[in-house]
Amino acid sequence: MHFPIVALIGRHQDTGLDAPLRTLAEMLIKAGRQVLIDADTAQNTGLRDYPVATLKEIGETASLAVVMGGDGTVLGAARTLAPFGLSIVGINHGRLGFITDIPVQESQNALARIIEGNYRAEDRMLLEGCVWRGDQLMYTAPALNDVVLNRAGRGGMIEVRVEVDGAFMYAQRADGLIIATPTGSTAYALSANGPILHPGLDAMVLVPVAPQTLSNRPIVIPGTGVLSMTLTAIGRVETGASVHFDMQTWSDLQPGDRISVQRAPHTIRFVHPEGYSFFSTLRRKLHWNLMPQASDSVE
Amino acid sequence: MHFPIVALIGRHQDTGLDAPLRTLAEMLIKAGRQVLIDADTAQNTGLRDYPVATLKEIGETASLAVVMGGDGTVLGAARTLAPFGLSIVGINHGRLGFITDIPVQESQNALARIIEGNYRAEDRMLLEGCVWRGDQLMYTAPALNDVVLNRAGRGGMIEVRVEVDGAFMYAQRADGLIIATPTGSTAYALSANGPILHPGLDAMVLVPVAPQTLSNRPIVIPGTGVLSMTLTAIGRVETGASVHFDMQTWSDLQPGDRISVQRAPHTIRFVHPEGYSFFSTLRRKLHWNLMPQASDSVE
Amino acid sequence: MHFPIVALIGRHQDTGLDAPLRTLAEMLIKAGRQVLIDADTAQNTGLRDYPVATLKEIGETASLAVVMGGDGTVLGAARTLAPFGLSIVGINHGRLGFITDIPVQESQNALARIIEGNYRAEDRMLLEGCVWRGDQLMYTAPALNDVVLNRAGRGGMIEVRVEVDGAFMYAQRADGLIIATPTGSTAYALSANGPILHPGLDAMVLVPVAPQTLSNRPIVIPGTGVLSMTLTAIGRVETGASVHFDMQTWSDLQPGDRISVQRAPHTIRFVHPEGYSFFSTLRRKLHWNLMPQASDSVE
Amino acid sequence: MHFPIVALIGRHQDTGLDAPLRTLAEMLIKAGRQVLIDADTAQNTGLRDYPVATLKEIGETASLAVVMGGDGTVLGAARTLAPFGLSIVGINHGRLGFITDIPVQESQNALARIIEGNYRAEDRMLLEGCVWRGDQLMYTAPALNDVVLNRAGRGGMIEVRVEVDGAFMYAQRADGLIIATPTGSTAYALSANGPILHPGLDAMVLVPVAPQTLSNRPIVIPGTGVLSMTLTAIGRVETGASVHFDMQTWSDLQPGDRISVQRAPHTIRFVHPEGYSFFSTLRRKLHWNLMPQASDSVE
Repeated sequence: MHFPIVALIGRHQDTGLDAPLRTLAEMLIKAGRQVLIDADTAQNTGLRDYPVATLKEIGETASLAVVMGGDGTVLGAARTLAPFGLSIVGINHGRLGFITDIPVQESQNALARIIEGNYRAEDRMLLEGCVWRGDQLMYTAPALNDVVLNRAGRGGMIEVRVEVDGAFMYAQRADGLIIATPTGSTAYALSANGPILHPGLDAMVLVPVAPQTLSNRPIVIPGTGVLSMTLTAIGRVETGASVHFDMQTWSDLQPGDRISVQRAPHTIRFVHPEGYSFFSTLRRKLHWNLMPQASDSVE
Repeated sequence: MHFPIVALIGRHQDTGLDAPLRTLAEMLIKAGRQVLIDADTAQNTGLRDYPVATLKEIGETASLAVVMGGDGTVLGAARTLAPFGLSIVGINHGRLGFITDIPVQESQNALARIIEGNYRAEDRMLLEGCVWRGDQLMYTAPALNDVVLNRAGRGGMIEVRVEVDGAFMYAQRADGLIIATPTGSTAYALSANGPILHPGLDAMVLVPVAPQTLSNRPIVIPGTGVLSMTLTAIGRVETGASVHFDMQTWSDLQPGDRISVQRAPHTIRFVHPEGYSFFSTLRRKLHWNLMPQASDSVE
Repeated sequence: MHFPIVALIGRHQDTGLDAPLRTLAEMLIKAGRQVLIDADTAQNTGLRDYPVATLKEIGETASLAVVMGGDGTVLGAARTLAPFGLSIVGINHGRLGFITDIPVQESQNALARIIEGNYRAEDRMLLEGCVWRGDQLMYTAPALNDVVLNRAGRGGMIEVRVEVDGAFMYAQRADGLIIATPTGSTAYALSANGPILHPGLDAMVLVPVAPQTLSNRPIVIPGTGVLSMTLTAIGRVETGASVHFDMQTWSDLQPGDRISVQRAPHTIRFVHPEGYSFFSTLRRKLHWNLMPQASDSVE
Repeated sequence: MHFPIVALIGRHQDTGLDAPLRTLAEMLIKAGRQVLIDADTAQNTGLRDYPVATLKEIGETASLAVVMGGDGTVLGAARTLAPFGLSIVGINHGRLGFITDIPVQESQNALARIIEGNYRAEDRMLLEGCVWRGDQLMYTAPALNDVVLNRAGRGGMIEVRVEVDGAFMYAQRADGLIIATPTGSTAYALSANGPILHPGLDAMVLVPVAPQTLSNRPIVIPGTGVLSMTLTAIGRVETGASVHFDMQTWSDLQPGDRISVQRAPHTIRFVHPEGYSFFSTLRRKLHWNLMPQASDSVE
């Protein structure tokens, strides 16, 4: 039996998740699955007819987590659940939904097919970042999308010295510097003119934001690379600099602080309904390569 | 009376222009205008019930030329008609139609309003290019979109030394180099990563195609600038290099040849129906700044 | 006589300006010019042997202002002096010096030639920006480089609705939006992938920073354009958004606030020694179009 | 003993290779190695004091091939030698030398250290491309840099339908389409605005040249991907389209032809002297991330 224990998780800030989550729960029970409700979700939705579990308990027990919300909701759950090896499926509740590619109205059918084994699994890498001040570890966090180092405030810039596997790569002066996974390559890194990385790649891409050089170009490095970024200067010290691990922020960076980034030991498994296409998602959601309107080109 | 003499011109390669052109002619006659048919168009369509005139006679006589086809058809007519100072309106017959922004099915209404004076006029600059071998003028042609210097053949590159107003600008090694007017900035130059120039600008933009340097960036110069481009090298001499003035080609460039480009003495006046918006055309036809699909951003 | 009254202005934060400014003053006196010292500069350097004047008095009296420092020093002086119609020459004191193209060690010779009439004058446009909350004018400031609208803080984005001359242009979701003059096109706008605008252009360029769309492209509009930008949303309301007029900041933007930008009524005249080349500055300082190292291309 | 049999190969078109190749040969003999001279090189240089061998015999016999010339010379040798598993070291003879990172004047020392075992090995992937017309294989060739599909001639464009592992990716209308290995990512693909791929990656990048859409972005896919590109249209049929496998060209493409590309079964091993840094090569040769000239940023 595929996925005998299924957990349901909803976006905390959303209303209206009660009914669609209940529909999914009932379908799962009928299909002979055990259902767990995330504790916070139970509280927010009033959905308390099923066993309640913390995210950590879900990780230890469930074989599939169904996350309803937006990409951010999935990012948050995935960071916590990654070490446990269960699978995640994302249901899109009114957002861009690049990762959460199943619309709510199709969620019942999609999930029914998935638990019958008609799915496509994708293992996605995460990053693990640390903030160091001298020898002292100040902060550590995982990231599924990206680690972003940037000026915290209103103007100015940061200067970062980057090493890869102990070798000097470059000194970058920019608004910020993004280290993105393939998953994150279609998020903020894309806005900063980064390339798209296929989710099947074991790689990271470094994309500066508004770099103060004409000769920049993003670089893609192997997933085994160990990055070390030393903040050598902040344009306006009074406003500071910060580092973001997906949406978690460490905002008290000082010149001399070092951020190390490497692949996390665990991946996270996303499952999609059969027929899912990454390229199709790129075309539909991001309008990738959308051609000019009419049938012929500019003559 | 606005536009007392109106000429009708159709794309030579198109079929099916007979009926829509006839409809326009009848409407114009009813509105008290004289109608002229372009000689080639008369031959291609069989539309011979109206006085026939060459493009040159149209330029000398008519006050408005209605061009039905695609942007290329308008480019071709505009190059010939520019010296005569008449106005042009473009009707889009099944093509991208960036310049020809009026669809055929709306052409009767749009033209009726235009000849009543409900229109918006836009004067667009043209370029004038010359090919020089030593002191000898080898070729000269006008261009409404762009002058494009590129390798003629299958690989290789060209090396071009560019001067503006007698001052050295740069030596570029690339697949090609585009000098575009504001009109041409939304054509080939846009594909090569050039900026959009508002049609109201008196300016040209230089955009290299696949330049062999990381530190390139397009440059916009005043419309009064005089450009001199010397072909200093061709990657593979056997395949050669060519220069294009819109769609007219001089294909026998040799190392040492010089192409001079400057603003033509005449502009061409395009008329649009009231309510025309350049920005709206950019958004609708080129999907400029089309945002990701759903209501919210990537979280 | 060219430039009978010359004012000397130094960067406030710099030390070591005393000697080079004194050298210039002595040369000017010998050449029969009157010399004024900016009041703040007199105080910072101890250079008090010459008549002292405020910036405003300099504007009213002097015919040439010599500004020693970096580009920021010139930007600051130019904004105040622009309405008075005097000329400015920039001396570079240990900075990038894109506008201040004369190195300190060459300043005596360069200035001597300039006051003999061997110079090249360039009139550069400024912008005038206003912040509106409903009908209330909250703030107004001039800008020689750019007006930059951006998120104030640590993540999030801004959403801006832009109109040009009353016509809707686009709704942009991005880290920020830059409106740059030709002077500013080689500053922050260049980092954000904008084109270079020749200083002789009467134009502005709009360049978004990290826009959330794949189909963005900078747009250059005529200098006569009137821009209206309404802040329709802030990604994270708690961190806010700000608008910068060169280095002057208004940091309390709220959703619904509107920033209007148009060409200032005055230009500022920069003078350069004969032989100055904008293109050469681009190549030397920004490494524009610097080719790969060796004599031949990648084969 | 490292590399007991060393083959020497020189660029066919170069003169002056006799002396430096002889120096290397003598050093190798003194170090107890057997030396082979490439048959063509022996003929071009007159270097016939050592056993002569064809490239194929070199592949079967030698453990190290020393290639003197430019990157193109190495590309050519590598394509032939890849199936045999020997190592290659490139000596740069007056060219850009991105792959051939050892200058001639340092070649004796560098090679001496390499054969003592002080080297760094890098295995680089190759592509294998096929041209299909219906079921008929028209042409096949390997590529170390890239497979480039483009319009053969003077204007026009190509339209290509691309599938990856059987799934539709996009239909591209452009001057050309580049499929580059990590090695090729710093060659033509870089000119067309592609990202840099670290040589350690098992990946390919697809970069269109002058694509007719604003929303393009390069995509990096896993090295295991199987690409199928169908030429669906040629802008100007009379000029045709061609496909290039590094420098080998098949120039008779017709609409409907299909090019398949996948990773070759063999990699090629490049050896570099200890201390070699890919990042340093990027910075020195391509001026990657070269900052503006002076010590401070644009203020």
